[in-house]
Amino acid sequence: MGDLKALISIDGESSAEDDPIVIQKEAGPTSKAVQDFGLYQSEMPSTSAVTRGMTLSRNNHLLDDDQPLIMDNNSVPPDIPINGSAGSSNRNIDNSEPIFHLRSRTAAASTPNYESLDYEVCENTLFQDEQRKRLTERFSLRKDIIRWIIFIQIGIITALIACTIDIIIEELSRRKYTYLYNSVKENVPLSDASDRDLLIPYLYWLLFSIVPVAFGAAMVTYIEPITAGSGIPQVKSYLNGVKIPRIVRIKTLAVKAIGVITSVVGGLAGGKEGPMIHAGAVVAAGISQGKSTTFVKDFRIFKAFRDDHEKRDFVLGGGAAGVSAAFGAPIGGMLFSLEEAASFWNQNLIWRTLVASIISVFTLNIVLSAYHGLNDFTFTGLFNLGKFDTPLKFDYFELPIFMILGVTGGLLGAAWNSLNTKINKFRKRFIPWKIGKVLEAVVVAMMGVTLACLMIYFINDCRPLGNDPTNNPVQLFCEDNEYNAVAALWFQTPEATVRSLFHDPPGSHKILTLALFTVVYYVLSCATFGLNVSLGVFIPTALVGAAWGRLLAMLTYYVFPQAEFLHPGKYALIGAAANLGGVLRMTISLSVILMETTGVETSFFFPLIIALISAKWVGDYFNEGIYDTQIQVNHVPMLTWEPLPQYKGLKARDILSKPVVCIKLHDSAHYIYQMLKKCDHNGFPVVDDVRGDRRSEGRVCGIILRSQLIVILLKSLYVENKRFWLPETSIQTFRDVYPRYPSIKSVRKLDEKINYTVDLSMFMNPSPIRVNPHDSVPRIFQIFRALGLRHLLVINNENRIAGIITRRDFIYK
Amino acid sequence: MGDLKALISIDGESSAEDDPIVIQKEAGPTSKAVQDFGLYQSEMPSTSAVTRGMTLSRNNHLLDDDQPLIMDNNSVPPDIPINGSAGSSNRNIDNSEPIFHLRSRTAAASTPNYESLDYEVCENTLFQDEQRKRLTERFSLRKDIIRWIIFIQIGIITALIACTIDIIIEELSRRKYTYLYNSVKENVPLSDASDRDLLIPYLYWLLFSIVPVAFGAAMVTYIEPITAGSGIPQVKSYLNGVKIPRIVRIKTLAVKAIGVITSVVGGLAGGKEGPMIHAGAVVAAGISQGKSTTFVKDFRIFKAFRDDHEKRDFVLGGGAAGVSAAFGAPIGGMLFSLEEAASFWNQNLIWRTLVASIISVFTLNIVLSAYHGLNDFTFTGLFNLGKFDTPLKFDYFELPIFMILGVTGGLLGAAWNSLNTKINKFRKRFIPWKIGKVLEAVVVAMMGVTLACLMIYFINDCRPLGNDPTNNPVQLFCEDNEYNAVAALWFQTPEATVRSLFHDPPGSHKILTLALFTVVYYVLSCATFGLNVSLGVFIPTALVGAAWGRLLAMLTYYVFPQAEFLHPGKYALIGAAANLGGVLRMTISLSVILMETTGVETSFFFPLIIALISAKWVGDYFNEGIYDTQIQVNHVPMLTWEPLPQYKGLKARDILSKPVVCIKLHDSAHYIYQMLKKCDHNGFPVVDDVRGDRRSEGRVCGIILRSQLIVILLKSLYVENKRFWLPETSIQTFRDVYPRYPSIKSVRKLDEKINYTVDLSMFMNPSPIRVNPHDSVPRIFQIFRALGLRHLLVINNENRIAGIITRRDFIYK
Repeated sequence: MGDLKALISIDGESSAEDDPIVIQKEAGPTSKAVQDFGLYQSEMPSTSAVTRGMTLSRNNHLLDDDQPLIMDNNSVPPDIPINGSAGSSNRNIDNSEPIFHLRSRTAAASTPNYESLDYEVCENTLFQDEQRKRLTERFSLRKDIIRWIIFIQIGIITALIACTIDIIIEELSRRKYTYLYNSVKENVPLSDASDRDLLIPYLYWLLFSIVPVAFGAAMVTYIEPITAGSGIPQVKSYLNGVKIPRIVRIKTLAVKAIGVITSVVGGLAGGKEGPMIHAGAVVAAGISQGKSTTFVKDFRIFKAFRDDHEKRDFVLGGGAAGVSAAFGAPIGGMLFSLEEAASFWNQNLIWRTLVASIISVFTLNIVLSAYHGLNDFTFTGLFNLGKFDTPLKFDYFELPIFMILGVTGGLLGAAWNSLNTKINKFRKRFIPWKIGKVLEAVVVAMMGVTLACLMIYFINDCRPLGNDPTNNPVQLFCEDNEYNAVAALWFQTPEATVRSLFHDPPGSHKILTLALFTVVYYVLSCATFGLNVSLGVFIPTALVGAAWGRLLAMLTYYVFPQAEFLHPGKYALIGAAANLGGVLRMTISLSVILMETTGVETSFFFPLIIALISAKWVGDYFNEGIYDTQIQVNHVPMLTWEPLPQYKGLKARDILSKPVVCIKLHDSAHYIYQMLKKCDHNGFPVVDDVRGDRRSEGRVCGIILRSQLIVILLKSLYVENKRFWLPETSIQTFRDVYPRYPSIKSVRKLDEKINYTVDLSMFMNPSPIRVNPHDSVPRIFQIFRALGLRHLLVINNENRIAGIITRRDFIYK
Repeated sequence: MGDLKALISIDGESSAEDDPIVIQKEAGPTSKAVQDFGLYQSEMPSTSAVTRGMTLSRNNHLLDDDQPLIMDNNSVPPDIPINGSAGSSNRNIDNSEPIFHLRSRTAAASTPNYESLDYEVCENTLFQDEQRKRLTERFSLRKDIIRWIIFIQIGIITALIACTIDIIIEELSRRKYTYLYNSVKENVPLSDASDRDLLIPYLYWLLFSIVPVAFGAAMVTYIEPITAGSGIPQVKSYLNGVKIPRIVRIKTLAVKAIGVITSVVGGLAGGKEGPMIHAGAVVAAGISQGKSTTFVKDFRIFKAFRDDHEKRDFVLGGGAAGVSAAFGAPIGGMLFSLEEAASFWNQNLIWRTLVASIISVFTLNIVLSAYHGLNDFTFTGLFNLGKFDTPLKFDYFELPIFMILGVTGGLLGAAWNSLNTKINKFRKRFIPWKIGKVLEAVVVAMMGVTLACLMIYFINDCRPLGNDPTNNPVQLFCEDNEYNAVAALWFQTPEATVRSLFHDPPGSHKILTLALFTVVYYVLSCATFGLNVSLGVFIPTALVGAAWGRLLAMLTYYVFPQAEFLHPGKYALIGAAANLGGVLRMTISLSVILMETTGVETSFFFPLIIALISAKWVGDYFNEGIYDTQIQVNHVPMLTWEPLPQYKGLKARDILSKPVVCIKLHDSAHYIYQMLKKCDHNGFPVVDDVRGDRRSEGRVCGIILRSQLIVILLKSLYVENKRFWLPETSIQTFRDVYPRYPSIKSVRKLDEKINYTVDLSMFMNPSPIRVNPHDSVPRIFQIFRALGLRHLLVINNENRIAGIITRRDFIYK
């Protein structure tokens, strides 16, 4: 192995690794080279040919999962000459044995069917023809204007969806809690502490929780499982360049919307903010494509935007609009999208994203202000933490306290993440049945209601009426003119509770109440995230943080009653920031969102940042943020910011995958057909200067995608019948089938066209990015990420293929 | 020419363009090939070999400006064999004639000596050795911590400098205006309108203007001319990747600080915000390098950060800290830096930048709050527009009005830019003398004072005392208990005037006052920007905008007195935004800065964005933003966001520069020495597989920089004496001479070492980015910009050099 690598030397004198005879010698008797397909293999522990075959390149819409990667020797077309010198000994390959059975560093992971987006623009001849036709100023202006219109639409529609969800949740929640309030009033006799009967309200409460939660969980489980959770990890992955199946469909949006309404109304410990962001992404993908897969409807508009590149740019705007609508934070929204997506800072794109965000916030303001009867657009965002009446102030000596809060947040957050991951692993292992998942959601909902009821029943925390912060002050077991502070915490949506913790006057709760509430909510939220329901994790995290932040301030004030600076709302805010930093670690956009939603003065950014950084650093010491953990658990091949430390000293030759299946610039239709049937890679180098069929020894002149090859076969774009198709074939021919390319199985047998040839020079991308085998991995990683690549060809000094690097080669060791 | 290009075909079969014989045939008798230097040339109008030689690659610290690019045939060392087959006919080259006299598309521009930054990390063997040694977790953690410390220092020191400048300006201005106020009081007899004698105050005013302005202009002109103007174009260029000589030196900072103080105190129509940003950049560059060129002092710290890559990352943070300190807008500061610099979104870098920004704002808060006697850190930013007391509200029907204001701003801004450019052209042409430049500044200052005095003298705008917004309400010719509203506008710094226009109650000024004020200030600011003084353009632009915004509101209210919505402060704000959008067009960061400084509600972002976008679009129709105009006027090779439209249909082969001077992997010291003396390119491809001396036909295996070659020669790093230097040579050897690499002239003659050879394999960057001649320019541009390249090698299908592309090849047509 070492010898083999040495052959790909820096001096580039030798390119013997392309010689199958050498390979065979090196690799010993286990090696088999199938000359007639230009394929060879060797026993290389570090190569990962199977990786791309089995994982990244597999598209389960297109290919059977169980089709082994056998190179069926019998199917070799008779017109392809077998290379005599090296191939003769390989003719009697055992057909039953798969060619690729190499050990691979990634094959071990049971990786689902994720693909990369083709973010790279394929600048083939057809594309250039289109460009040339449209070089006119007018066309590019028109395309630009349409782009702007789409972005504005994204902003408006995302906001409208957010409003709809919000209003429905608010209406239903209000009815639910009003009913419960009345039920408590009727069933609990006033001033008669001996007859504490909460049973009937408890049963009602259970009913109001179980029914919506069961409905939502069933929808998610049976109709669209991808809608489970907050959706932020999925949107993050998509923006990072990973195609998650069904993530941006309208059906997904519908299920998600209903799912989040039922879950929040059902009283689960979760928020609606994550799903809002997902909704924005779906809206963007839907509008920009001008067609819907769910409704099998093509509006025949925006056809020019039908590729991964344009679509992802729109989804960027959609995600930003979603964040803006959810938090009322347009700059935060823009940064959220950028933080996940922007490998290249394109000013125009960011400008459009910002406008979509601002329009989204504005639309939401109008609608919700009208709904709430405000006439001055002062309603901002769904997650409205409420502006602080007086500017928050702080003293120098509080900075260490904020840091301690940050450290606490980091510790609690790391523990939460770890606990949640364990619970989810347990779930995955012991609850595989669908009905079990629905039942589990119901059980957690019941647990929440029961714990709340127990707290209300056993804790006696009565406060005088008058400065009550809730709409429904429950008297319960309190005296007249008093209300129950515990019930006040529980008898509203989690969001309203965060607001209460920020803005309630000092002394609104007992220390015991808040302590128990913190613990209960911490456990509940941990059990909830990972259920098969649509729910975000932002609100419960902020709520837990606000609770313990306020609690710490109260405790300290109890010990040092002279400490006047201990404004409980301020500490609740810092606590929320610290807890969010500890759980999410989203860093930049999170900081900006917090700054925007709370509307604090610029001078208060510093305490917030201190808490966030401390929390993030402490948390990072233990584990990763909850979104990243989710992404890892699902084996999504997400690219990190920097190459993993294990890759630091490596070279391209250490991570590349080979052998590489190549295609000749003029190749036979039959070879292409057979090859597509046998292997399911997604990118094939196009080579030239090939002796016989030793394709992998040719000089690289381009790269072609599987989807393009299938279209070529489907539309019979052969050299022999060029006069028929050439006039009407354009780049649009390929765009029309986007995004669901047909499978190779949909191509009929090439009986009469078996001798036809395909000239790829018109279709291939002639400018693939190429690197050398001795280039360092950090550098390659930078190129890969900055340019949003899917395939990176590794060539030797003579421009012959040495291997291929894909996204997955940078992930897991 | 066409035939020649056809040889570099897509099929890549032929690489005949590397054959000098073919070239000579194609190019005809004018062609001369200097075989012994591996150089050849042909009469190609589109090649721009001379470009790099004359402009981009020229470093005037290193090289004579007037040294012609003659390949002196006499100096050919005897030990280098002349290639007989093609070279013999070329031996008698006329020595007096420069080899490179090709027409070039860029040679026409009288381009100053700008170079690119070497942002690309040179991953040579030495670098990898260092990496390997430091692969330990501990080292990388240490480096990370030091980076954080530097960023925090940048934030603090930038803020302290900003504070110092601000406090000095405030103190001096207060004294100046108090003195003038008293002088007016003494010299203008009360209630005696017949005896309107403003002469003595006028003379005092003149004196207080002329002295500081003359002093400042003289300093700028005679000591450091680069400090003229706001500095933002220079910082922008630096962040974009262009090395502007002397831009980040401590001397520059000192002159700039004194310059801005004198100019603002002198009463010129300019602000101190631009210079603050420049100051931040200087601080960052200074601190991060741990040495000062101005003081010839090396602190021997932060040695690992001595390269263009690290330095630019720190300057990014410095610029952000500067913006934050100037405007009190940390998020805007971060975005400002990103907008100009971030070709690659590195989360850690942005995180550090944000922290530097927030710390800068915080430090400034502390110091200025203490200075102003506030104990709650409520002083935010130097450019404090003042928070609006009540949240700004607006109605739907105002949106078109905002748009009209935006269009007005765009028109006025475009006119301002155009006028200013004309004035500056006039200046450049007719005022070449240094003393003339100083006098000009004095004249403009006198003009300002005179116009102000005339306005005060002739306009009778008296307002009742009591709601006066200024510190020095001048009674002047008014009745008792009244003050002069015109004098109030003029008797303060421009910044305070902006604040007045935003927050003064309705009816504080006459329409005539404001109309005249707008016109006068518009003309004054236009005449001021471009003077040889250190001044920013932000404040006067905002001031003009606020003035006409308020004026429009007043006019409309005068016509429709029932229009209650016409809050003059609101319209002043929108007017300022529109005018800023029209003049600067900075778009994203400007929007965010405005949102942050005015502290408006999220709901008011929408009107601001409408005004900004309308202004930008209308302005863009006519000309470019003022900063970009300045950059263009100075011929700075700044890369745009997208390739220029003229480049849309082109291929790499249409823009590449050739011939390319190459070096063999093992080349003679003498050849390298001679080559460095003869040509002043900065990057040389390293080639291998060379037949004889036909270097440009070798296979590319790396790239080496001029600076590296000079260090190699200076330190005698030859193969023959390897045992002496090998142990102690590391990447630090090269870093030590950064950033002022010695000139080739500092290398002694190689008398005894004339036969020594240099092995470049250890020093060269083995992973240069390479593209093909048929790759499209937009794609190449994207690669170039995303990776922050300086040299991009164009290779043919056999990995032999076809040309080189540098920054300048993307600019000007």
